[in-house]
Amino acid sequence: MARALQLAERGRYTTHPNPRVGCVIVAGGEVVGEGAHLRAGEPHAEVHALRDAGARARGAEVYVTLEPCSHHGRTPPCADALIAAGVAKVVVAMRDPNPQVAGRGIETLRAAGVAVETGLMEAAAQALNRGFVSRMTRGRPWLTLKLAASLDGRTAMASGESQWITSAEARADVHRLRAACGAVMTGSATVLADDPQLSVRDLPMSVRQPDRIVLDTNARVPPTARVWQGDARRYWLVGDVPSRCPDGVEIVELPRGADGRLALDAALAALAAQGVNEVLLECGAELAGAFLLADAVDEIVAYLAPSLLGDAARPFARLPGLDQLAQRIALHYTDVRQVGPDLRLSLRPQRRTAE
Amino acid sequence: MARALQLAERGRYTTHPNPRVGCVIVAGGEVVGEGAHLRAGEPHAEVHALRDAGARARGAEVYVTLEPCSHHGRTPPCADALIAAGVAKVVVAMRDPNPQVAGRGIETLRAAGVAVETGLMEAAAQALNRGFVSRMTRGRPWLTLKLAASLDGRTAMASGESQWITSAEARADVHRLRAACGAVMTGSATVLADDPQLSVRDLPMSVRQPDRIVLDTNARVPPTARVWQGDARRYWLVGDVPSRCPDGVEIVELPRGADGRLALDAALAALAAQGVNEVLLECGAELAGAFLLADAVDEIVAYLAPSLLGDAARPFARLPGLDQLAQRIALHYTDVRQVGPDLRLSLRPQRRTAE
Repeated sequence: MARALQLAERGRYTTHPNPRVGCVIVAGGEVVGEGAHLRAGEPHAEVHALRDAGARARGAEVYVTLEPCSHHGRTPPCADALIAAGVAKVVVAMRDPNPQVAGRGIETLRAAGVAVETGLMEAAAQALNRGFVSRMTRGRPWLTLKLAASLDGRTAMASGESQWITSAEARADVHRLRAACGAVMTGSATVLADDPQLSVRDLPMSVRQPDRIVLDTNARVPPTARVWQGDARRYWLVGDVPSRCPDGVEIVELPRGADGRLALDAALAALAAQGVNEVLLECGAELAGAFLLADAVDEIVAYLAPSLLGDAARPFARLPGLDQLAQRIALHYTDVRQVGPDLRLSLRPQRRTAE
Repeated sequence: MARALQLAERGRYTTHPNPRVGCVIVAGGEVVGEGAHLRAGEPHAEVHALRDAGARARGAEVYVTLEPCSHHGRTPPCADALIAAGVAKVVVAMRDPNPQVAGRGIETLRAAGVAVETGLMEAAAQALNRGFVSRMTRGRPWLTLKLAASLDGRTAMASGESQWITSAEARADVHRLRAACGAVMTGSATVLADDPQLSVRDLPMSVRQPDRIVLDTNARVPPTARVWQGDARRYWLVGDVPSRCPDGVEIVELPRGADGRLALDAALAALAAQGVNEVLLECGAELAGAFLLADAVDEIVAYLAPSLLGDAARPFARLPGLDQLAQRIALHYTDVRQVGPDLRLSLRPQRRTAE
């Protein structure tokens, strides 16, 4: 199963909206077939592994990181393929988190006389597909908030000058994050101020360019913005429908909250409906604060440069109404790494326990 | 020498103003004597080791982390004691950094026919006594700025509420830092707002209570302040001499800078003259910023709690006049540790290269 998870990792930058899945077939104590799912529309991991194993799949044991599918999607059901190949046993790391299909693949296999075990290395399989799991079980993407700041928590000088607080190594790491999340979201303020591309550049591996998502209540972002360029999927989340829309950009109209801003929960639900598993939020202090106060952030990845910018510089996140220490946003550290001269700190909200 | 450095470590919390020194005597490939300097006024490491070795010191090799002294201080010269014991060779990690005595101990030994080598594990010996080295070579103590803040670099709510941003584990670690530095400095604003003791409490090892130092330009701190209590050395660094002084508190009158504040360089020089090797600065954003802008901070130890307090909360350090990114205070990380749920980040100024 550890090998199957390694294989599943190969899809980290490419499988979305599908989950990352790996499969290993073992016969007579020997690996006879391996496969990974790499791209939506292409064969699933089990199919690759069965092809690899050929006739040796008969009577073999199959290790797969996600419950084999039992429905006809873009590809035929893997459960049927495993039965047809005559495998004796299937070991599944995690069930399909989609409540409408969970367990059916396993039932199909068992009904055909195939032994099935579940739960081996389940936590690792869940972590690898936390976005897919989140979309299936919570109806919203896994949301990672990226911050890049000085040690004193400042993201830009008062003037807005911010290039570059963190190192080239940290910026390259952000490109990996973007690629792994598969979607990057920002707000209109950031687009209007910085005109970022939010693309993935200069990575050594093959990646799918991430979806671009712009939260823009009053549809202020111009059609010439760089975030609209290229052929990845582009979503323009608006409160008012703009009179004209750049080519290839999908407009998603959303309700406004009591404060006149876009309802963030509705925004996340709309993205899940579009098949978005994971979102990297790269934005200014206002929007970051709004998502944090709405308890909609699943993880923070903070790049902390070894410098001090002082109290006049711009803050991490605006958190209006936070007056008492007891109201603070409580997190816990999950990972700390050095990235060039900077630190990368990963944190999750304290109140969440599930992956 | 590694063992001698271990022995020297024993004095980490107790030797100041003296350096931390360890000594190992080896005869016939066997350790025959060990010693460490533990408290000013008590025997030096070499004397302890010679006593331990007894007659076996004759013809032995001596490993000592600091050049043996050659002058009569509170104890007789160690170089003479080594010669009298008839040792054959002395290996010294570092020379005495005091420019007025450096090398004399070595000369005395060589003149008596004892072989001397220097430089073995010198960097580690220097690091252990960075405060003593700083006082001897730069005429000022090694200054460590302690910060305790949230991830977004906030040290207190706007109201001043700050108990407790960091964890009990982090606060215990601060007590170790205070004990190791041997002196704690703060400003009058912190004393008037929080009335801290700045003492060392609840540590498992025997410590010497740190000196307390209060920077108080206008001598506003009342005699009832808790920082004046207890029997450690207390220094009241003032611009105006107060009309009355609490018992046992030493008043140090200092010049003011052009801005009317105490001249920080003069303050550090005065502390060095009092035998203060290392100072832990625990203060508010104003004074922290002043020391940072004066380039007087040798190290920052920042305890970063996994929480966000928001942009209205109080900053790390006030750095007036810092408008452009190029003016930022550039540091580099030297250590990162988890302390309970918090992180402890150690940093040094980028522009410094010496220890």
